[in-house]
Amino acid sequence: MPQARTRQIGSPTNSLVKVYRRALAKGITREGWLAIEGPFLVQEALAAAPAVRTHSVLVAESGTAKFAGLVARLPREAEAVQVPDRLFEQVAQTQNPQGIAALVELPPYHLDTILAGRNLLLLVACGLQDPGNLGTLMRSAAAFGASALCTLPETVSPFNPKAVRSSAGAIFHVPVIASLAASDLLPRLRAARIRIVAADRNSPTHLNQADLRDSLAILVGREASGLPPEIASGASLVLSIPIRPGMDSVNAATAGSVFLYEAARQRGFKY
Amino acid sequence: MPQARTRQIGSPTNSLVKVYRRALAKGITREGWLAIEGPFLVQEALAAAPAVRTHSVLVAESGTAKFAGLVARLPREAEAVQVPDRLFEQVAQTQNPQGIAALVELPPYHLDTILAGRNLLLLVACGLQDPGNLGTLMRSAAAFGASALCTLPETVSPFNPKAVRSSAGAIFHVPVIASLAASDLLPRLRAARIRIVAADRNSPTHLNQADLRDSLAILVGREASGLPPEIASGASLVLSIPIRPGMDSVNAATAGSVFLYEAARQRGFKY
Repeated sequence: MPQARTRQIGSPTNSLVKVYRRALAKGITREGWLAIEGPFLVQEALAAAPAVRTHSVLVAESGTAKFAGLVARLPREAEAVQVPDRLFEQVAQTQNPQGIAALVELPPYHLDTILAGRNLLLLVACGLQDPGNLGTLMRSAAAFGASALCTLPETVSPFNPKAVRSSAGAIFHVPVIASLAASDLLPRLRAARIRIVAADRNSPTHLNQADLRDSLAILVGREASGLPPEIASGASLVLSIPIRPGMDSVNAATAGSVFLYEAARQRGFKY
Repeated sequence: MPQARTRQIGSPTNSLVKVYRRALAKGITREGWLAIEGPFLVQEALAAAPAVRTHSVLVAESGTAKFAGLVARLPREAEAVQVPDRLFEQVAQTQNPQGIAALVELPPYHLDTILAGRNLLLLVACGLQDPGNLGTLMRSAAAFGASALCTLPETVSPFNPKAVRSSAGAIFHVPVIASLAASDLLPRLRAARIRIVAADRNSPTHLNQADLRDSLAILVGREASGLPPEIASGASLVLSIPIRPGMDSVNAATAGSVFLYEAARQRGFKY
């Protein structure tokens, strides 16, 4: 670890330690920086540079040798901070702290820039409550070439630590725009001539019967209750995944992923 | 609640209370009965009668009125047991006990009977570790008309309480056969002329390029590492889900669900 940029901190009241503690609990700082934990996510963030900027890493003393390779890949302006293991454990929010955490900055995404693109595939999470489900959807959105994932205000935060973990680093590879009001988003989608598709298990029209090749935004609802009627009514197309009679539904993240897969399939998996 | 079949128990050392405590922790009793918690799963089990047999329900005192309707639907031979709230909380394994639990018996599934069917769609979980993922796969298997879900011994138990919860009752609607040795299962699939398909992210052949209409068994691997080579080598077809270059993979339950969806789509969603 290059000594020049490694600082040692032992005090739990140090201001950076406090920032980490708060950020790792909430997932995000006041400045909008993402707090991530574990070598896998730190590595993914570093791999997504320079779009994703790593501001600092926090390393537990016992992880110094193990994580030297990761620390060596830090950009020049970033800082590495070493803390005693006990302090790291107090700061980390996971049950089995892995000895490394980081504060990173996602690129500033603008909906208008995204909507100006062609052959768009947007996923809009409308009320999803489970962070694991939202993380899984981020992962599918990145994998199936979605242009962005947007969330409505009633949805769990995509920056929730569990959502970020479940995204398996996909949060660094797909634009995520959180907490957009439906009353703002839907008119902007219409103005950009993006077809609004509501995923609704009760629709008689199946997703594979529709042409999903043009620019579209897929709205997926809350786990148990689906899409709120006032949002579903804003869609120009309501589609269901045909499942076996008598079965109620698939998991919400599965449903969104199947919609993304079907759209990607119809587009010939051209990413 | 018909008094005739409601028994009140106050002692934590009562043998039935002990059976519930052990079973709710493990998910399954020595006899192979499934222990479930919460009104949703109890209702799903009762709805799947007589294939699924409910042996007894355990109700917290404060839930007596709330769950009277469920208790009234119990089969004649089943027993309802009322316990004080504090005892229920000690017995229940969930963070927020919902006041009702049950011991139920799944139908005895035989692989040979299943393999004698036509147009089979089997899902084989080969090493999946996350119970939420396995539960999500059970739900997708039931929804997309799978003939059965089998697990290899290295896989998390489908009777794990979290797996059962994530299945959202699907465990009562799709045959689940746990802990089959690959050395036993694969030859039996071949003997029954069921095509063995390995899901492998590195395969150059995409799942939508293959004909998935005939009887087949889809093997899905462990979350991080995929299928063990010795199992993948037993497949007659190795297929990938085409994802965006640079992305590593989708969630394991998502991958299995997408394979099931694609097979169901090719079969015209005829369940």
